Amino acid sequence: MNSWFPIPSNSDFSIHNIPFGIGTIADGRHFACTRIGDHVLNLSALASTGFFKGLVSDESVFDKPVLNDFIQLGKPVTNEVRQRIQNALSDDHSPLRQMPQLFIPLDDVVMHLPVHIGDYTDFYSSIEHATNVGKMFRDPENALLPNWRHLPVGYHGRASSIVVSGTPIHRPSGQVKPKDAESPVFIPTQRLDFELEIGFIIGKDSYLGSSITTAEAEEYIFGLVLFNDWSARDIQAWEYVPLGPFLAKNFASSMSPWIVTLEALNDFRVSGVTQEPKVLPYLEFDGKRNYNVSLEVAITPIGHEEAIVTKSNFKYMYWNMCQQLAHHTSNGCNVCVGDLMASGTISGHDKGSFGSMLEICWGGKNPITLSDGKLRSFIEDGDRVTIRGWAENQEKRIGFGEVYNRIINETWPGLAAQ
Amino acid sequence: MNSWFPIPSNSDFSIHNIPFGIGTIADGRHFACTRIGDHVLNLSALASTGFFKGLVSDESVFDKPVLNDFIQLGKPVTNEVRQRIQNALSDDHSPLRQMPQLFIPLDDVVMHLPVHIGDYTDFYSSIEHATNVGKMFRDPENALLPNWRHLPVGYHGRASSIVVSGTPIHRPSGQVKPKDAESPVFIPTQRLDFELEIGFIIGKDSYLGSSITTAEAEEYIFGLVLFNDWSARDIQAWEYVPLGPFLAKNFASSMSPWIVTLEALNDFRVSGVTQEPKVLPYLEFDGKRNYNVSLEVAITPIGHEEAIVTKSNFKYMYWNMCQQLAHHTSNGCNVCVGDLMASGTISGHDKGSFGSMLEICWGGKNPITLSDGKLRSFIEDGDRVTIRGWAENQEKRIGFGEVYNRIINETWPGLAAQ
Repeated sequence: MNSWFPIPSNSDFSIHNIPFGIGTIADGRHFACTRIGDHVLNLSALASTGFFKGLVSDESVFDKPVLNDFIQLGKPVTNEVRQRIQNALSDDHSPLRQMPQLFIPLDDVVMHLPVHIGDYTDFYSSIEHATNVGKMFRDPENALLPNWRHLPVGYHGRASSIVVSGTPIHRPSGQVKPKDAESPVFIPTQRLDFELEIGFIIGKDSYLGSSITTAEAEEYIFGLVLFNDWSARDIQAWEYVPLGPFLAKNFASSMSPWIVTLEALNDFRVSGVTQEPKVLPYLEFDGKRNYNVSLEVAITPIGHEEAIVTKSNFKYMYWNMCQQLAHHTSNGCNVCVGDLMASGTISGHDKGSFGSMLEICWGGKNPITLSDGKLRSFIEDGDRVTIRGWAENQEKRIGFGEVYNRIINETWPGLAAQ
Repeated sequence: MNSWFPIPSNSDFSIHNIPFGIGTIADGRHFACTRIGDHVLNLSALASTGFFKGLVSDESVFDKPVLNDFIQLGKPVTNEVRQRIQNALSDDHSPLRQMPQLFIPLDDVVMHLPVHIGDYTDFYSSIEHATNVGKMFRDPENALLPNWRHLPVGYHGRASSIVVSGTPIHRPSGQVKPKDAESPVFIPTQRLDFELEIGFIIGKDSYLGSSITTAEAEEYIFGLVLFNDWSARDIQAWEYVPLGPFLAKNFASSMSPWIVTLEALNDFRVSGVTQEPKVLPYLEFDGKRNYNVSLEVAITPIGHEEAIVTKSNFKYMYWNMCQQLAHHTSNGCNVCVGDLMASGTISGHDKGSFGSMLEICWGGKNPITLSDGKLRSFIEDGDRVTIRGWAENQEKRIGFGEVYNRIINETWPGLAAQ
């Protein structure tokens, strides 16, 4: 499939992608949009040409500040919307070719958080990450806790502090207990970290008291985003027993603005690792439910070049999204359109593929040197952290773009603009 | 202060209370309302008489399915709304006296969840509860974890599964690891429990990156509700290490339909216990920040009389609401109108005041006998659990009413109606 629209070679946003997002231009009015190459296609304006006639009856879904109402139309509609756009962009005789005003250069658009997130859940589904953390924080001989191979461990996170790519992140302060100190102190975190994750957006409501099976789960997954689960490791170490991470995480999490549909990734399905011991029946599944999505994280010290600090892959997940969703609803918990479920840190087998500075630098023991010549064990003020992700084979490339944020502190607000 | 409106003596909903809620009658249209004695006063209908002229410019806030837009008006307005209603109900010459149609008998109104809850946080702020749980689950000699006296431990809960009083609760199934078994099994919970809590509703937005001090905190607290943090203890025991409770809690939590304003409780302020060791400066506070609110829990086996199984008090809290909110935002986490923050289980010093069956029956070791003649260590199918709360002195009584739910399972759906 080719497009008459000019698309840079190797673009994440090829004719095969057609993701969804929310943008604004100078007038400040929100519109649903997709992206093709380096341009944004305004779906609200497209709808007003009659393009979605017979398919979307209430076209105001394209004029909302979030995609929830659009997603609520259901996959039979939203998949057809995507298909219709894809067809028009690849049909040399499409009337769309005579409407250049609908395509806005990327730099003229501000992208926003694409959904209202009702609830946010973070899983902990990479066996390498869980093992690394267990080795550092608990018992190196019994790094994985007894429940880990039996269920996809997860916990609830804070939805209000999830921000879109580009938003500056304040270095949080919090209670920290210095080693050997008698009492905690309240200071800016000294161990600010990223967590390389992928999140999925719920595309269909379920009802309280009912469960979703692994076979049904994909009906409930609208699409995927890159996700950075920012973490303050020193705050986390002091607060997290017994009820889990709280202020160490909820100061901010960030996500990429484009939701790549599950359907777009269909050709990149792969099998996950064999799960041993055998899982309970409600967690069994058929087919290939992992996805081959390359991931990388770059750190850019202020005024210097970026350095890629890790390369990982979404296919490493031990627990897949269908299992996560089946587990989450196995007790009757309901999910709602727009909810976000994140993977947990995605680590591979070796240091070059670990998904957090905690693991890459092994709790501060093995710092790395960046382009500014300085050692890093964690993230410094002024650093910009960028996560990128893409699926690629010989025929097509489907990318997520990136989620990036720079770290600012209160005495250095000018950084936000850089 | 007296009212010309007939109010049963000892009513929770005296002229001193004037709480806020959301109701519907036969036509199904939601309206904001308050309660006086055994009647519901329709504030939407009241607004249409011009009653709030000069005070509320957009009266559609009274016609919404939730109170969020009303609360968003801010305390200077919402407090004055409450005051104006209170004045009219106590003024013998009020025109309201000629509008009996605005007062609906309680039985004719269906009450709803009063707010859209964006995020829900549960604290763990009763020292007696934390000590009891620590003794049972961890080390009896070191029951309180090292961080407990330094910060109000909290965790994020699930907002989507919070339901209003009266909603039947499905007994959840989940992974449980029987003692000495090699592998977990997936079964209906055998250890279903209530947790006696009070929640507060956020009344003012804060901004990401900014904090709320203990001195400012009350500006952000709109009002309080009774809250039952339903828990499945066997699911919890297997899943909660290391990231905290998840499926053991998120199958349902329930709250009372009437939000009692913080201002209504002003005369019931008391001092909490002395906090030792001294807290860090950001958790210091002035004045009386605990509240003397009597609490009780009743269990009603199906077809039998209720039995009061515990009597506790909100004043027992070690960490107060202002400290909870200051801690929650100390890292810059933002809060939003409608967010719910719950206290954690409120236990007193002895068995008669413990706030959960886990503590009352000490993990199943000391079952209690109810009116059906059967032993209970946890909650059985068909049981109705009712939490009540009220503040009272010689001059006034201000109550919360109750939050009640009956437990059903899938093979016994007819129970829901009882």
